[in-house]
Amino acid sequence: MPRVALDALGGDRAPEEVVAGALEAASETLTPVLVGPAGLDTGGLELVESTQEIRMDEKPADAVRAKPDSSLVLACRLVAEGRADAVVSAGNTGAMLAASLLELRRLRGVYRPAIAVVIPSRRGPSVLIDAGANADARPEHLLQFAYMGAIFAEDVLGCADPSVRLLSIGEEPEKGNALALEAHALLAASGLRFEGNAESRDLLHGAADVVVTDGFTGNVSLKLLEGTIRTLLEALREEIGATTRGKLGGLLIRPAARALRNRLDPDTYGGAYLLGLRGVAVIAHGNSSRTAIANALRLAARGVEQDVVGHLAARLPERAAKAGV
Amino acid sequence: MPRVALDALGGDRAPEEVVAGALEAASETLTPVLVGPAGLDTGGLELVESTQEIRMDEKPADAVRAKPDSSLVLACRLVAEGRADAVVSAGNTGAMLAASLLELRRLRGVYRPAIAVVIPSRRGPSVLIDAGANADARPEHLLQFAYMGAIFAEDVLGCADPSVRLLSIGEEPEKGNALALEAHALLAASGLRFEGNAESRDLLHGAADVVVTDGFTGNVSLKLLEGTIRTLLEALREEIGATTRGKLGGLLIRPAARALRNRLDPDTYGGAYLLGLRGVAVIAHGNSSRTAIANALRLAARGVEQDVVGHLAARLPERAAKAGV
Repeated sequence: MPRVALDALGGDRAPEEVVAGALEAASETLTPVLVGPAGLDTGGLELVESTQEIRMDEKPADAVRAKPDSSLVLACRLVAEGRADAVVSAGNTGAMLAASLLELRRLRGVYRPAIAVVIPSRRGPSVLIDAGANADARPEHLLQFAYMGAIFAEDVLGCADPSVRLLSIGEEPEKGNALALEAHALLAASGLRFEGNAESRDLLHGAADVVVTDGFTGNVSLKLLEGTIRTLLEALREEIGATTRGKLGGLLIRPAARALRNRLDPDTYGGAYLLGLRGVAVIAHGNSSRTAIANALRLAARGVEQDVVGHLAARLPERAAKAGV
Repeated sequence: MPRVALDALGGDRAPEEVVAGALEAASETLTPVLVGPAGLDTGGLELVESTQEIRMDEKPADAVRAKPDSSLVLACRLVAEGRADAVVSAGNTGAMLAASLLELRRLRGVYRPAIAVVIPSRRGPSVLIDAGANADARPEHLLQFAYMGAIFAEDVLGCADPSVRLLSIGEEPEKGNALALEAHALLAASGLRFEGNAESRDLLHGAADVVVTDGFTGNVSLKLLEGTIRTLLEALREEIGATTRGKLGGLLIRPAARALRNRLDPDTYGGAYLLGLRGVAVIAHGNSSRTAIANALRLAARGVEQDVVGHLAARLPERAAKAGV
């Protein structure tokens, strides 16, 4: 039963919602280990005491160096020391990336870890990688993100022979910026089931099992997807509420709208894996609710049970060798 | 009364929907001039005959060079020769960009034309620039896009002292890729009402009067916005249709949903201005319906009436001088 270290001070609603999420997720198959200040009310859950805190607006690398005993860094260290099986934080994403690089370290041959988010597309789960770890990336990084995403989709999501596409501004191979054009050529020769460029308009509909991009474009895309869903549903609610007829209709469609909302709500998928490390690390949204935290913990536990790290460690070198990288 | 040259062979549904859109838009204040093959049934509208055609999948620069008498290139030339006041095409975007550069030419001091799309955000119109003309751009290009977007918002949309934001992956100035970081510094010193970085999650809600980005990120964002709205409304319709209760509710909310859909539908805004040229050029969606074509024609006519080109020509040098560019 996986022990998941949880940064109790990470996120805009910490520590209350974080602790509440941990209590919600705690079960016979998941043991949250809170990392935070002495005296924190954990509702009976295990607490590992830390003495420092990294705020959302601190410079990641500096903060991680200066605060080795912060809840975020210590939570990562618990995994490195074998005192926990996975780590979750809704705190400063950059700091989480820096801390996990420092404490968990990269798998052999990995240039850079990448954030993999599972988008609940209409056609099924679709892995967007990199969703924000590397704002600037080179073509060979994108190739490796594709390998990591494909192994993840196959071994963890159970998707046989996953299709891979490159996010770009047109389906034709010659459409894209310099980075996309070079990455396209590498992907075409990768041995992956590469199906060419994907257009962002298909992201929610389901473009491929794995959609590869750099961390800047991926992060913009993910936030745009989330924000557009939220704003559109708000606008619809307002429009419906403007007439009596609409209000009645709104009552009748409420269960359907709620089901849809829950399926697409970022809180439902809870967090994103940081792939390429020697340990399971999950990054949750900064404004995570208790539900989001609970789901992020479950995501981390699943990563342990399905041995995400072992699969990547075993198969990345083989993939790279096949492509002659 | 503006005469608008329309590429009759541009777009996936040409020429039928294009001609139908022209007939829909033709009025006492707008004269469409169709450019296409001899014998085209224009329903009585003026036809300027062309002998060549540029297809959607042709390489833009090559196609424009090789086909000077294509409907797309000739439509641009009509504006250059004073035979039309503006040009609209739903054809190959890259070819339209190349043809307008060749035939209309850039305004003095403009590095690169950019695509400006008016997003119908919840807070009002928001100009996204560049929405796809320049897949690779330098920081000084983004600064100029901001100037063009601000002049457009002020003089054409009537937005006094428009706010400007840079699309990035966090609101803090230090969040972004190398391009965004450098552009941020230039924008901060630009004399514009620069309010820092915008996150993509706020794009539909309304991030700023002008949102600046490179053409790759802008195009990915625009298509993601459109695709997500479409997919979400489809999913909602399906979810509602799954139960009798939902179906009844769906009937009742139909007018509200339709109003919202119309407000957000890309067909409603119809097209995007290509700013920075010595003439009004509007790019319509490749899959434009007749409604989209009609709206693109109206957008072009408005651009003529409000003298978009004159405003940019007059104010761009002043803006640049102020910023010491």
